Amino acid sequence: MYEGAVQDLIDELGRLPGIGPKSAQRVAFHILEADGEDMKRLADAITTVKEKVKFCAICFNVSEENTCRICQDSRRDPSLLCVVEESKDVMAIERTRSFRGKYHVLGGSINPIAGIGPDQLHIRELLSRLSDDTITEVIVATDPNLEGEATATYLYRMLGSIGIKLTRLASGLPVGGDLEYADDVTLGRAFEGRTVMS
Amino acid sequence: MYEGAVQDLIDELGRLPGIGPKSAQRVAFHILEADGEDMKRLADAITTVKEKVKFCAICFNVSEENTCRICQDSRRDPSLLCVVEESKDVMAIERTRSFRGKYHVLGGSINPIAGIGPDQLHIRELLSRLSDDTITEVIVATDPNLEGEATATYLYRMLGSIGIKLTRLASGLPVGGDLEYADDVTLGRAFEGRTVMS
Repeated sequence: MYEGAVQDLIDELGRLPGIGPKSAQRVAFHILEADGEDMKRLADAITTVKEKVKFCAICFNVSEENTCRICQDSRRDPSLLCVVEESKDVMAIERTRSFRGKYHVLGGSINPIAGIGPDQLHIRELLSRLSDDTITEVIVATDPNLEGEATATYLYRMLGSIGIKLTRLASGLPVGGDLEYADDVTLGRAFEGRTVMS
Repeated sequence: MYEGAVQDLIDELGRLPGIGPKSAQRVAFHILEADGEDMKRLADAITTVKEKVKFCAICFNVSEENTCRICQDSRRDPSLLCVVEESKDVMAIERTRSFRGKYHVLGGSINPIAGIGPDQLHIRELLSRLSDDTITEVIVATDPNLEGEATATYLYRMLGSIGIKLTRLASGLPVGGDLEYADDVTLGRAFEGRTVMS
């Protein structure tokens, strides 16, 4: 509908996740009217991220160096390994300040419909990290959804026999939530996992 | 939270309209994992739009040339001028195929709270386009909201005395809508503007 360059930009923006046609148009016009320097910074940020950011050779978290800051940090407990699906999950856990061990990013979850099986995830690399005796506990922190649970079950079957303690994040009622609005499965899990008050 | 380049990109994306922190993070990780060529095209589209796209010297619609395609099109009726707030509105009206005249893009609407008065809009240029006798009708197609109505009223006061026919887009019930869900003002306007059935 628009002339060349504007329509090209709308098309490219529309391919990004969560950006529909209306919002692509809105962002495109914002870019058109915004300060040239600001928009140069945006274009450069995209280019720079593609050039500079890689994945950590040890844990597959995003990193600008060969190994990420967490893997390089000698103050972190190397005996605890938290397995997550994505780099975003590492950041979410880091924000809680509840975990001082190391991570392993699988790069997704098992999803047969999307054609993602164990071989597409960094599970082989996880096994090789577990082969020396440094790690004593693996905390499986995949998402509490169908794919995440399938991945956790797969890991349990793979790792259950090698003598390392395997744990899973607790399921239950979200803090600040309302009991009556909790879904049945979550409420059921909250019952199963009830803890003794002290 | 993230390492340099990733956080820079999240920050830049978060400044775009309608993109909150979560969605900036999601888009940034998409960019990180997407095909390098695709992302080069996105960065280039941003740069190109800033370099190539200007505003039409006559109507202030977006254009890659000095004057836009609509102003250059000799098949369009030069006696009808539709005044809109933004280039997006030109496209919306073009999609209806109901209008074959020309446009004038004001570049916004009168909004005292945001510090936008008549002098910040292309109203002087509108007056100069009306100074020869080519244009016989001005259709005021500003948004049917507070700022759009204020702008329409201002234009009516400016142009009411120069002998050109001034019209305003009809207000009423949206087609396909439900009468009971229409707001009071819209329903009131639909009554005022009722038409004789034929």
